[in-house]
Amino acid sequence: MPELRKDPVVGRWVIISTERSRRPTNFSPARPVRTNGFCPFDPGHEDKTPPEVYAVRDNGGSPNGPGWQVRVVPNKFPALQIEGSLDRRGEGLYDKMNGVGAHEVVIEGPAHDQDLADLPVEHIEQVLLAYRERMLDLHRDRRIRYVLIFKNHGDQAGATLEHTHTQLIATPIIPKSIQEELEGARRYYDLKERCVFCDIVQQETAEGAGRRLVSMNDRFLAMAPFAPRFPFETWILPRRHDASYQVLEAKDEFRDLALMIKDTLRRLNLALDRPPFNFVLHTAPVSDHDLEYYHWHIEILPKLTRVAGFEIGSGFYINPTPPEDAAHYLKVMEG
Amino acid sequence: MPELRKDPVVGRWVIISTERSRRPTNFSPARPVRTNGFCPFDPGHEDKTPPEVYAVRDNGGSPNGPGWQVRVVPNKFPALQIEGSLDRRGEGLYDKMNGVGAHEVVIEGPAHDQDLADLPVEHIEQVLLAYRERMLDLHRDRRIRYVLIFKNHGDQAGATLEHTHTQLIATPIIPKSIQEELEGARRYYDLKERCVFCDIVQQETAEGAGRRLVSMNDRFLAMAPFAPRFPFETWILPRRHDASYQVLEAKDEFRDLALMIKDTLRRLNLALDRPPFNFVLHTAPVSDHDLEYYHWHIEILPKLTRVAGFEIGSGFYINPTPPEDAAHYLKVMEG
Repeated sequence: MPELRKDPVVGRWVIISTERSRRPTNFSPARPVRTNGFCPFDPGHEDKTPPEVYAVRDNGGSPNGPGWQVRVVPNKFPALQIEGSLDRRGEGLYDKMNGVGAHEVVIEGPAHDQDLADLPVEHIEQVLLAYRERMLDLHRDRRIRYVLIFKNHGDQAGATLEHTHTQLIATPIIPKSIQEELEGARRYYDLKERCVFCDIVQQETAEGAGRRLVSMNDRFLAMAPFAPRFPFETWILPRRHDASYQVLEAKDEFRDLALMIKDTLRRLNLALDRPPFNFVLHTAPVSDHDLEYYHWHIEILPKLTRVAGFEIGSGFYINPTPPEDAAHYLKVMEG
Repeated sequence: MPELRKDPVVGRWVIISTERSRRPTNFSPARPVRTNGFCPFDPGHEDKTPPEVYAVRDNGGSPNGPGWQVRVVPNKFPALQIEGSLDRRGEGLYDKMNGVGAHEVVIEGPAHDQDLADLPVEHIEQVLLAYRERMLDLHRDRRIRYVLIFKNHGDQAGATLEHTHTQLIATPIIPKSIQEELEGARRYYDLKERCVFCDIVQQETAEGAGRRLVSMNDRFLAMAPFAPRFPFETWILPRRHDASYQVLEAKDEFRDLALMIKDTLRRLNLALDRPPFNFVLHTAPVSDHDLEYYHWHIEILPKLTRVAGFEIGSGFYINPTPPEDAAHYLKVMEG
């Protein structure tokens, strides 16, 4: 059973895999994406993954067979385990609990070579709907406090399989970055009685502003944040206040978000020659979906520079590209 | 002039280089250590760096000429600029200031091919003394609130020059990770009236404990932390309470620390075949060198796995090697 352990100083929870422990000789400096010509996510290989928990099969076909457009399966090598109780306990001054949770993979489409940005908008809508459906389903488990949805695209961004997919980790804790955002947004709200993200949206879209705005549609906008850690870091935010992704419901909302994601990824692909990237969905915790002070959004982090451990160790980032310049380069790309 | 900008939600300051902005085409995915046979840190090339601000020349020799054992110079491409005023100001809801500060390089030794771990203990003592001397000197500048000392060793860990060196960035802000530690340690102290790091040292060195302890001498210990983010993450802590590195003074103290650093790096080199790594010195801010609740230490982060952006974006780390296993592998290496 994996363990969740808490750093006694800063309070960060980490997953410690106790079962498939890696010995010193198991670390190879380069770990390229290897498929050896075989991909477990390709249609026809459905028996090579654990049985699906969700799928879109608009044209029929039976579960765990071909014919799907989107397919969600448990991760074959999960970081957390769905069975068991949390069993929170101490070890002297330290705190830990069992690594209970879920780890799933959203296979975004059947075609091995098509990235998310290449898929038709209607198809991306289905992927976004799959996120929400899995989120709502996992929310029924009372041990789960957060559902973290993220994508590692490209070898340099940590992808181990090249077939386009998103990961979903449901955890009994709130990830540190989300917790920090919740606390920071709360402090701002206490002072101003306004959501800080709503204020950001307003400032960036005001008449005469827009130096960091990349694009906008009826419901969403893409922008370079004011203090980005990475070159070409890009955020997608709903223009209307909503704390949680799970409140997305109407077909039009999914459509506008799919359009914005496709447009943003295409601009990044054009400007940066299909860069490796990560995206992380930041949304309110399961139990707090109607917070007045938090505002869900997507952070896209292109992997263009080597992140030195000192930046991780100190939390101090040096970004060689001003966000105004990054937004400019993305803006002039044909959307 | 570079800018320091603050994220309006989580309060993290980042440096935005506004002068040598990198255009989209300037990012190459691989950036190997290139010296082209020429190294500006080698003896005889002293005129290829800015004039030195500190040097050890036990056998004579003139400033900015050969004959040195340790040499500290301003970074030729500094992330922050020493001239100018901070000029703190707003931009709507955002906060920023001028990128004022210092960025120096500690060239640890004259030999191009000798890493820190290869140097004699007496030489490492001189390097450690250089850290302190520069720290104290920079503290005289009232604009400086923190002196961040770190080392990127190896291409994969972000080093751009292979000649062994440490970097020093003096900033008008406190780096986020240090701020978090200060706050967390303060909360613990408020509850317990004890330093959390002292409690960690006590628990890890208690009779019958020691599963995470790697080694110990009179004044220092090396250990795998309870909740490490990375495989083989190793911390070096003073056994006695001291908030700041700057209080190191006696020759014996520098000697014991040099011994502990050399021993720890050698164990990591033996167990992991000379891995790339980062180390970050965590010490109290300039003005708070006698805090009762904080305890300076060094965090060594071997770069064995690819850090996915999702881990940076979420603050949620998955570590495949339990610290007890890592400590075991390091312990059995001959120190």
